[in-house]
Amino acid sequence: MIDQEQYQVDPWSLPERELRLDLLAQSESVFALSNGNLGLRGNLDEGEPSALPGTYLAGFHEQRPLPYAEAGYGYPEAGQIVINVTDGKLLRLLVDDELLDVRYGQLHSHERVLDLRRGVLERRVHWESPMGRRVRVSSTRLVSFTQRAIAAIRYEVEVEHAARIVVESDLIANGNTDDGGSADPRAAAAMGAPLVARASFAEGTRGMLAHATRESGLLMTATMDHVIEGPPNLTTRAEALDDFARLTLAADLKPGQKLRVVKLLGYSWSSRRGLDSVRAQAYAALAEATHTGWDGLLAAQRSYLDDFWDRADVEIDGDPHLQQAVRFALFGVLQSAARAEGRAVAAKGLTGTGYDGHAFWDTESFVLPVLSYTAPTAARDVLRWRHSTLPAARGRAEQLGLQGAAFPWRTIAGEECSAYWPAGTAAVHINADIADAAIRYARATGDEQFERSEGLELLIETARLFAALGHYDADGGFHIDGVTGPDEYSALVDDNVFTNLMAQQNLRAAADASEHASQESQRLGVGAEEVGAWRRAADGMVVPYDEGLGVHPQDADFTHHAKWDFAATGDRYPLLLHFHYFDLYSKQVIKQADLVLALHLRGDAFTPAEKARDFAYYEAITVRDSSLSACTQAVIAAETGHLQLAYDYFIAASQMDLEDLEHNTRDGLHIASLAGTWIVAVAGFGGMRDHGGTLSFSPRLPRQLTRLAFGISYRGSRLRAEMTQRTARYTLRRGPALELIHHGRPFSLTTSDPASFPIPEITAGEPPTQPPGRAPEGRESGRRAAAEQETPG
Amino acid sequence: MIDQEQYQVDPWSLPERELRLDLLAQSESVFALSNGNLGLRGNLDEGEPSALPGTYLAGFHEQRPLPYAEAGYGYPEAGQIVINVTDGKLLRLLVDDELLDVRYGQLHSHERVLDLRRGVLERRVHWESPMGRRVRVSSTRLVSFTQRAIAAIRYEVEVEHAARIVVESDLIANGNTDDGGSADPRAAAAMGAPLVARASFAEGTRGMLAHATRESGLLMTATMDHVIEGPPNLTTRAEALDDFARLTLAADLKPGQKLRVVKLLGYSWSSRRGLDSVRAQAYAALAEATHTGWDGLLAAQRSYLDDFWDRADVEIDGDPHLQQAVRFALFGVLQSAARAEGRAVAAKGLTGTGYDGHAFWDTESFVLPVLSYTAPTAARDVLRWRHSTLPAARGRAEQLGLQGAAFPWRTIAGEECSAYWPAGTAAVHINADIADAAIRYARATGDEQFERSEGLELLIETARLFAALGHYDADGGFHIDGVTGPDEYSALVDDNVFTNLMAQQNLRAAADASEHASQESQRLGVGAEEVGAWRRAADGMVVPYDEGLGVHPQDADFTHHAKWDFAATGDRYPLLLHFHYFDLYSKQVIKQADLVLALHLRGDAFTPAEKARDFAYYEAITVRDSSLSACTQAVIAAETGHLQLAYDYFIAASQMDLEDLEHNTRDGLHIASLAGTWIVAVAGFGGMRDHGGTLSFSPRLPRQLTRLAFGISYRGSRLRAEMTQRTARYTLRRGPALELIHHGRPFSLTTSDPASFPIPEITAGEPPTQPPGRAPEGRESGRRAAAEQETPG
Repeated sequence: MIDQEQYQVDPWSLPERELRLDLLAQSESVFALSNGNLGLRGNLDEGEPSALPGTYLAGFHEQRPLPYAEAGYGYPEAGQIVINVTDGKLLRLLVDDELLDVRYGQLHSHERVLDLRRGVLERRVHWESPMGRRVRVSSTRLVSFTQRAIAAIRYEVEVEHAARIVVESDLIANGNTDDGGSADPRAAAAMGAPLVARASFAEGTRGMLAHATRESGLLMTATMDHVIEGPPNLTTRAEALDDFARLTLAADLKPGQKLRVVKLLGYSWSSRRGLDSVRAQAYAALAEATHTGWDGLLAAQRSYLDDFWDRADVEIDGDPHLQQAVRFALFGVLQSAARAEGRAVAAKGLTGTGYDGHAFWDTESFVLPVLSYTAPTAARDVLRWRHSTLPAARGRAEQLGLQGAAFPWRTIAGEECSAYWPAGTAAVHINADIADAAIRYARATGDEQFERSEGLELLIETARLFAALGHYDADGGFHIDGVTGPDEYSALVDDNVFTNLMAQQNLRAAADASEHASQESQRLGVGAEEVGAWRRAADGMVVPYDEGLGVHPQDADFTHHAKWDFAATGDRYPLLLHFHYFDLYSKQVIKQADLVLALHLRGDAFTPAEKARDFAYYEAITVRDSSLSACTQAVIAAETGHLQLAYDYFIAASQMDLEDLEHNTRDGLHIASLAGTWIVAVAGFGGMRDHGGTLSFSPRLPRQLTRLAFGISYRGSRLRAEMTQRTARYTLRRGPALELIHHGRPFSLTTSDPASFPIPEITAGEPPTQPPGRAPEGRESGRRAAAEQETPG
Repeated sequence: MIDQEQYQVDPWSLPERELRLDLLAQSESVFALSNGNLGLRGNLDEGEPSALPGTYLAGFHEQRPLPYAEAGYGYPEAGQIVINVTDGKLLRLLVDDELLDVRYGQLHSHERVLDLRRGVLERRVHWESPMGRRVRVSSTRLVSFTQRAIAAIRYEVEVEHAARIVVESDLIANGNTDDGGSADPRAAAAMGAPLVARASFAEGTRGMLAHATRESGLLMTATMDHVIEGPPNLTTRAEALDDFARLTLAADLKPGQKLRVVKLLGYSWSSRRGLDSVRAQAYAALAEATHTGWDGLLAAQRSYLDDFWDRADVEIDGDPHLQQAVRFALFGVLQSAARAEGRAVAAKGLTGTGYDGHAFWDTESFVLPVLSYTAPTAARDVLRWRHSTLPAARGRAEQLGLQGAAFPWRTIAGEECSAYWPAGTAAVHINADIADAAIRYARATGDEQFERSEGLELLIETARLFAALGHYDADGGFHIDGVTGPDEYSALVDDNVFTNLMAQQNLRAAADASEHASQESQRLGVGAEEVGAWRRAADGMVVPYDEGLGVHPQDADFTHHAKWDFAATGDRYPLLLHFHYFDLYSKQVIKQADLVLALHLRGDAFTPAEKARDFAYYEAITVRDSSLSACTQAVIAAETGHLQLAYDYFIAASQMDLEDLEHNTRDGLHIASLAGTWIVAVAGFGGMRDHGGTLSFSPRLPRQLTRLAFGISYRGSRLRAEMTQRTARYTLRRGPALELIHHGRPFSLTTSDPASFPIPEITAGEPPTQPPGRAPEGRESGRRAAAEQETPG
């Protein structure tokens, strides 16, 4: 855990006023820069000390064999794993022969600021060497949103007394990537030197290293160039070895003089093209960046972000921490995906090696709902990436004896990499989640071209999977057996409600889309008979209900199981590190929202009374051992009127990484939890839903917030919603008129005519309770929140 | 598959008239000799050619790490694996410098006979060297039942023309153990040179090698001595290196002369004692064997087996193949366990490295029912071995958050070695199976001392496990959720009927035994309250029933699942090698008897009508991909009156290894299937049941058999049951009077008064059908059997 004082509160930036080495790993994740294609962890310029040095290229991975003591048919033999590629961030400073290292000498001040509007990480260091030489170093780092292959660093040095200064600017491959061999299964597998040298070069101010991965055979090139301003006596030398290219600058610096180095980095990689081509691409990107220049890159970055914030900014009045956190979150989501363009968006984005750099359902179920309404082009590209993996998914379906496509539970390049199938291959809901994202994107954008091509094929192939997977009972009920839902403390269950409802939507959407684009669907082999089969399966889809308890069981048998013994659990969380799955699976204990996520994503399938009862039931047994839970609990807490609870979950979701609530921010940011922060604001307190064809809002603010406003991109329009405790106001800032719904009341919105509506009161029942110690702590301390919950609300 | 002609039909031996190199691996398993402590695979004397050279010591194992690509809490980190220890079987012959190798020169004849009464493997070779030298070699090999550390080989050479003869008699450690790296998960893990040399010695006619395992740190010693008779010019030389001790004999042999070498082997091992002690023990055993001499060892072997056959022989008239097979089976079971004395009895006995040499529930559920009635001392020793592993089982229960003992699914020394928990740790029925074996042994022997000590503790600790594992519903029903029953094509199910019924028996027996031995149970912490809790759980135990189908579902949800698509399956058996568990687990398809095994072992819990319906239902979906199935299906087929089907399953069970029906006899014999052969004879056609306190028989023969007779050891008495098509006759050959039941009719039996009863007719319904191609083929061809089944019986 990181206490709240680590970062200063600021609406548009994340300022760190002190370097804490015990939090170095977390800060490397929090200060990571990325554009979805290239990612740099927030490592210090000088490379050391570091916790996990990291430079990542989306999709660039190594293969490793997946070992099984007891193997089985269809177990994936090879895993894919993100690797730390050639490090170009390195700028080492020597002052009179002494290496700037914050662990030695005296660190008079050390400030870092992540600027969310400028899209840069700034660092200011005032350091005194062990020999007493004082130096001021400032660096500004960016990963360009406008030039996807480019990162740049401006590095400036000033001295208080004349000193000999040397700056070493490196490209280093196969640097130390040891992550300490964590036993936590959520961390990544360690991997030694994964890169094989293919070419290197250094001359003038430029350098280049080309490498290939040993097993997966991918080629990459890192290039660097430098623009140097300094005292007249400055000399440089360039050199390169296999894993190493360096530009060394030496100068005598006097007080008042400044040495300024702008380091430009260009990366490229390919799985198909040859060395010449990959290398040429990196050089070309570098040439373009050099041409643009530092100031040009900075300006373009600002302009890109200005446009993003204009579309998507979320304003929160009444809680400055939340204001900061929600913008940090949106920025993080954007960074994870903006320029991924045909590559996977991983659970940790490009901020660390957690989960081996794999993409899961997080992308479609948490990240894409944000992107579809804030950066639709990025959303489309993610879906295109999924679409590009269809051959592997079809192969997997065939291997499993199914039809259509079975998308992998975890992957980088499209092949299933999950080595524990009960919580991997069995989690077939990912296919319906992909369909859900495709449906949402198409509805949110009206992107007819996508709908008739990639979107259509994704819907058809996933519908085929569910049609083949389920079976009918004698009464015509359609069942999907032996699957694992989102909650990973259950597995291999029958009729998981979330899976069934999402599959139902999938089947219907595939039928609708196939009829809508009948020529295209015929080309994909879909006829009336198949469409009819999908509709029949959807109509017959079984949604279990426990009459005795008056709630939906998470699956057919869930509510018949023993309840978890919370009293005996103590503080042994997360449970998965202290209890065997054998124990967890057979008990009523929930790792993360599952049925409650169905209440959100398939809210159209439940009555308000059912939602209230279901939510209360599952709150009491949800331990929130996953980062994919607080936001969903917040959304349903808000919908059912438990606004204090929703607020507390909002804080929990928004602080996941800023306070390192799950103790694994070191491995990278929880991108889905960042997305979840936006989801709480927009779907929770804004009450936005996109069931069916019409966007609806049912806003309602917790007492702590005086105002909430957010922007939505919708079918080419820019909509802004703004709400206070009593009133909601909708403004169409650009684009054609929209039909919307406010608390059940349809209305039209045009650019000329904003609409305002009162927010109706809600009478919520008694606030639900959580397992002991598992209530969200909230800003006003867990105890006080708990006490409040005991008072009927 | 091996055709029936490979072995000649003989009632008391298994003669092989021809050496087939393509069946070498299988013959090594079939001709393996063992006494439960020491096992020698049936490798050729000269060592090569060989498929899997093997010498095994019960319990002697190496550790290896168990790898997981995705690990979890409570996953075992180390596996135990049987290793091929120092090979003492080797006797290499050189004839005029040419090595006797059946692959070269000319093999005029090669005969091997496993003699089931003498307990020896005999081999006669008539070979002509590439240079035209003819030689006759005969060897007789035994592993002594009376001296458990001892094996002996008599090796005789005669020549047709004068020749120079050399015999090399070796001890070799770390010989080739490569098993070809089979991808079949049922095969063993390969392991390189597992033994580290500790001492070696050779002098005169003796040799010794002492080794330790690298990781598990176990110490072993192999010793040899020789008694040589030969021509006067014979010379010998002894030598030893680290992994190698050799006695070389050289002689000029003339026609009419004979070179005879008796090689005596003594083995010892320990996990605790030091080198001197282990070595001394092996020498002492060798000294005793030398003192006994070859003829003495042979005579003692015969005498031991005469006594065994007198107690236990099964006679079958009407099918000479079955007669041979059932005696081979009984001999194999005896070999697996006779002198294990505190070590595990592995699924493959000591005949190969299949399943890594692990012991499973097979031992208690298949082997011990045989031993309890034929070699009760051996049965007791196996249960004592289980009892000795209680500390590990208690630790495992604690790790799983349970009470009592959780015995491992697979192990050598007591620790859980299963790396796939859904079909390992979740198969908690093994605990009830152990209890069942303890109950049966105690009832069969009246061994009060065992009942009050090891037996009591086994019952108590397993009952504690189930009491902690289950939970009550609102109606007082006791459920056991999330477990895996015997059928490995289902996993993690609720209320598996087999598990629940076996647990019910376990709980009741623990309660009864605790009250019976109240002082002893109090010392184990059992009070009236705990006994009451066990009885309450047993009384409330839920046994699901499908009212719609009128059958017991295998588990709460089983009959709601889709049926397996047999039409689309083709010949892709065993299914586990062609279909993903994700597919198998959610369908109605059965690998091996599960509910049907409950019909046998808890037959008291079902009505005859239920048995008939249940059996028919499960027959239609049981594919028999496990060797642990045919025998149980035979037993229930017989009980429900389907005698032709029972007979066909009898053949399938009895020929499992003789015909290599599962294509893995190379890895070792299926000891449980051998045991199952006896079970079919005695429990199937003899109809013997041991529910409650009274032994009952309901004999009924298939039309092919004119007579069946078998011996039963029961509470110190020797009972013989003999039945024809119409009549059963019971004879008490020794011991106090017995109360027995024949077809529901109680009667008393004394040594003076045999009893005869008519066998009532039974009218069975239509014979059940099996999945296409999965009916037992029977002796009279699969097609004919199938045709018969189509005619209502």
